[in-house]
Amino acid sequence: MIIVNYKTYPEGLSRNAAELSRIAEHVHEETGVSIGVCPQYVDLRETAKAVKIPVLSQHVDCYEAGAHTGSVNVEAVKDAGAIGSLLNHSEKRIRLSDIGKTVDGLKKTGLISVVCADTAAVSAAAAALNPDMVAIEPPELIGSGIAVSKAKPDVLTDTIALINKVNPSVTILCGAGITKGEDVSSAMRLGIKGILVASGIVKAKDRRTALMDLAEAARKAT
Amino acid sequence: MIIVNYKTYPEGLSRNAAELSRIAEHVHEETGVSIGVCPQYVDLRETAKAVKIPVLSQHVDCYEAGAHTGSVNVEAVKDAGAIGSLLNHSEKRIRLSDIGKTVDGLKKTGLISVVCADTAAVSAAAAALNPDMVAIEPPELIGSGIAVSKAKPDVLTDTIALINKVNPSVTILCGAGITKGEDVSSAMRLGIKGILVASGIVKAKDRRTALMDLAEAARKAT
Amino acid sequence: MIIVNYKTYPEGLSRNAAELSRIAEHVHEETGVSIGVCPQYVDLRETAKAVKIPVLSQHVDCYEAGAHTGSVNVEAVKDAGAIGSLLNHSEKRIRLSDIGKTVDGLKKTGLISVVCADTAAVSAAAAALNPDMVAIEPPELIGSGIAVSKAKPDVLTDTIALINKVNPSVTILCGAGITKGEDVSSAMRLGIKGILVASGIVKAKDRRTALMDLAEAARKAT
Amino acid sequence: MIIVNYKTYPEGLSRNAAELSRIAEHVHEETGVSIGVCPQYVDLRETAKAVKIPVLSQHVDCYEAGAHTGSVNVEAVKDAGAIGSLLNHSEKRIRLSDIGKTVDGLKKTGLISVVCADTAAVSAAAAALNPDMVAIEPPELIGSGIAVSKAKPDVLTDTIALINKVNPSVTILCGAGITKGEDVSSAMRLGIKGILVASGIVKAKDRRTALMDLAEAARKAT
Repeated sequence: MIIVNYKTYPEGLSRNAAELSRIAEHVHEETGVSIGVCPQYVDLRETAKAVKIPVLSQHVDCYEAGAHTGSVNVEAVKDAGAIGSLLNHSEKRIRLSDIGKTVDGLKKTGLISVVCADTAAVSAAAAALNPDMVAIEPPELIGSGIAVSKAKPDVLTDTIALINKVNPSVTILCGAGITKGEDVSSAMRLGIKGILVASGIVKAKDRRTALMDLAEAARKAT
Repeated sequence: MIIVNYKTYPEGLSRNAAELSRIAEHVHEETGVSIGVCPQYVDLRETAKAVKIPVLSQHVDCYEAGAHTGSVNVEAVKDAGAIGSLLNHSEKRIRLSDIGKTVDGLKKTGLISVVCADTAAVSAAAAALNPDMVAIEPPELIGSGIAVSKAKPDVLTDTIALINKVNPSVTILCGAGITKGEDVSSAMRLGIKGILVASGIVKAKDRRTALMDLAEAARKAT
Repeated sequence: MIIVNYKTYPEGLSRNAAELSRIAEHVHEETGVSIGVCPQYVDLRETAKAVKIPVLSQHVDCYEAGAHTGSVNVEAVKDAGAIGSLLNHSEKRIRLSDIGKTVDGLKKTGLISVVCADTAAVSAAAAALNPDMVAIEPPELIGSGIAVSKAKPDVLTDTIALINKVNPSVTILCGAGITKGEDVSSAMRLGIKGILVASGIVKAKDRRTALMDLAEAARKAT
Repeated sequence: MIIVNYKTYPEGLSRNAAELSRIAEHVHEETGVSIGVCPQYVDLRETAKAVKIPVLSQHVDCYEAGAHTGSVNVEAVKDAGAIGSLLNHSEKRIRLSDIGKTVDGLKKTGLISVVCADTAAVSAAAAALNPDMVAIEPPELIGSGIAVSKAKPDVLTDTIALINKVNPSVTILCGAGITKGEDVSSAMRLGIKGILVASGIVKAKDRRTALMDLAEAARKAT
């Protein structure tokens, strides 16, 4: 599984979101690899209508529907067609208790949760909250072009070991610096089940080729 | 001017947002009173396409487009069709410097800013940041059904006096507990130029009648 | 072990902190039960000088010493004589990654960490970060006078089961609504090793008697 | 007036705080220039006992005394001997409404407030909240050694003009990059009444000489 996070890059907004989402759908159809996309809130609904691949929110707040001006809740992203959400991305860190509450809220609503974490111990803590997936991403490598699977394989194997001890039902993803198929292959050889990628695809010159490269590597590795 | 904040009420999400926005458009056409609506992020784009009245965001973050997962920026809400944004609502208070930065960012992008404030002094501080509008809303009255213009007229007159000293170009709104036409009338008699309303309309049994009541009062008062 | 959190109650500030800390020291000497106290930052140094029982900070920030105006760091509380710190109290919730970083920082400096949590799952997550202690405190019972060990024994047994699975080396405390010896006894019968208490002692009419009651119950239970 | 902010530098903690505070006291006695010092919370009480110059907190939270674990309140810093507090430092930005509330809380308790701000407009907003002082500090120059008064004189004159329009009773300080007497002189020639300094003094090799240099410049300029 590959999750493409559009962040708030202009290259992933509006028409660019639509185009990139169709590319992701096409690469999924070509390779059979699961590809999820995370557009901005304002593009969630149109993206979910336009493509058949999974659409996730980049974040949801811990508040339920009600008097919470300016917040994003589980009900709203579900209504917009998202099948789940990232949580606790390094650019949107949240409080431990709020992660617990939001993972529960997503689960109750039938949505999946992908909790991001910066270290092996924090990944294990996230896994203890019983989300569907945990994504380990050393923040210093995010957007660096230096793949976590190459630069910090130990962090990945430590994360896998700790999570498997705490909660083996959690699917483990990794991210940070992933741009090439071989970054995916090396991660999956270590036992990682999927990839979280952003600038490596969203800002690539040829996004179709770049995503196809990652998906082909994922396909071969499974 | 009346601004209807849908908050994250289920009664203001998706189809309910569409219905309420058409009501607001219709009341505007009937009365000539400016009515703006603030749907949730996921409904911004469809609402802005569906109606001709102004659509505003409930909040925008202080970050520019880029590597800011889960945030909402000026470019995105503009692209979605919003003509401006609320800022610093009592349910989404933000840092002083971030209000300054975001008011500037909205202005540069050609969007209007409506900064909420809880006291007369904070309203004057907000006005010093040169937004288009400041909305004074004593938090203890929000959602109470007890109109600020009836319960705390002094707060309104103090706010008007202080803002006019600091920055007379700012349009002054008020909110909190507004549900009836006479709440609007009494506010406008004190010198208030517009109304911020949420549950009083969004959760009203007959939303068209309730909004028409406010708009008629606003029309008569001008 | 009993930890008395002075919060920012006037009854626990300055001279009151000194008096209460001497009471705690005396009760420890009488009963042999470990009693730690958590005064406010401004009282840490004097308290640590005045009594021989353990003094803990109520919180430390995740920043190291340096250009971090207004923050509280591990070096400062250690220098002031604290032997550790509470973290993530329900009145001072912090981000998951910051808990991870701060637990590590305390450990490296030779200080102990007591991470508070609101649910069994969040307690397990906290335990995965490898602190010395985790304190389960259902927020709705804090300050209520309704003891967690009476009102929610299931939460305590669930917490113990989950933490023992994730990290059996963690000492498990509980808090919220504890005011009487029998609240302590019932908690310890369930397998809890210590108690976190605040208003039940700090605001008690006769603080010595109230704390002696808790300590006697703890002594008998071990 | 010169305010020395010790931040959380090791050079300003504990014995270093005591030494630096005595230096500040001595420079005040030599030059007659008002010098205030801002030690860390854990050193507030001892510093206030040890020296006769004004001691300020680096921050206070907006909460009153009570059930607010880990927070710092007006009552506590007053009890510890502080005569006031910095607020909203660039390393501890706070919400607009919380600044309003805390400025009021300090005033009611007889303490002075020094609100930091990053731009001329934000300085004017801060002034509208009626604090005793506003300190303009462009964040990009903090700790840079490039004095705001040399690098951005326009920001200072704009700030003075805007604040004088909004609230002429506010005393205007500046900070960021101040290390030498001539930085003070140039600021005061522009109309600035005092200086906020941190690393330029706290981390200076010869702190007495460095502070004497600033104080002499301030004395000559008045």
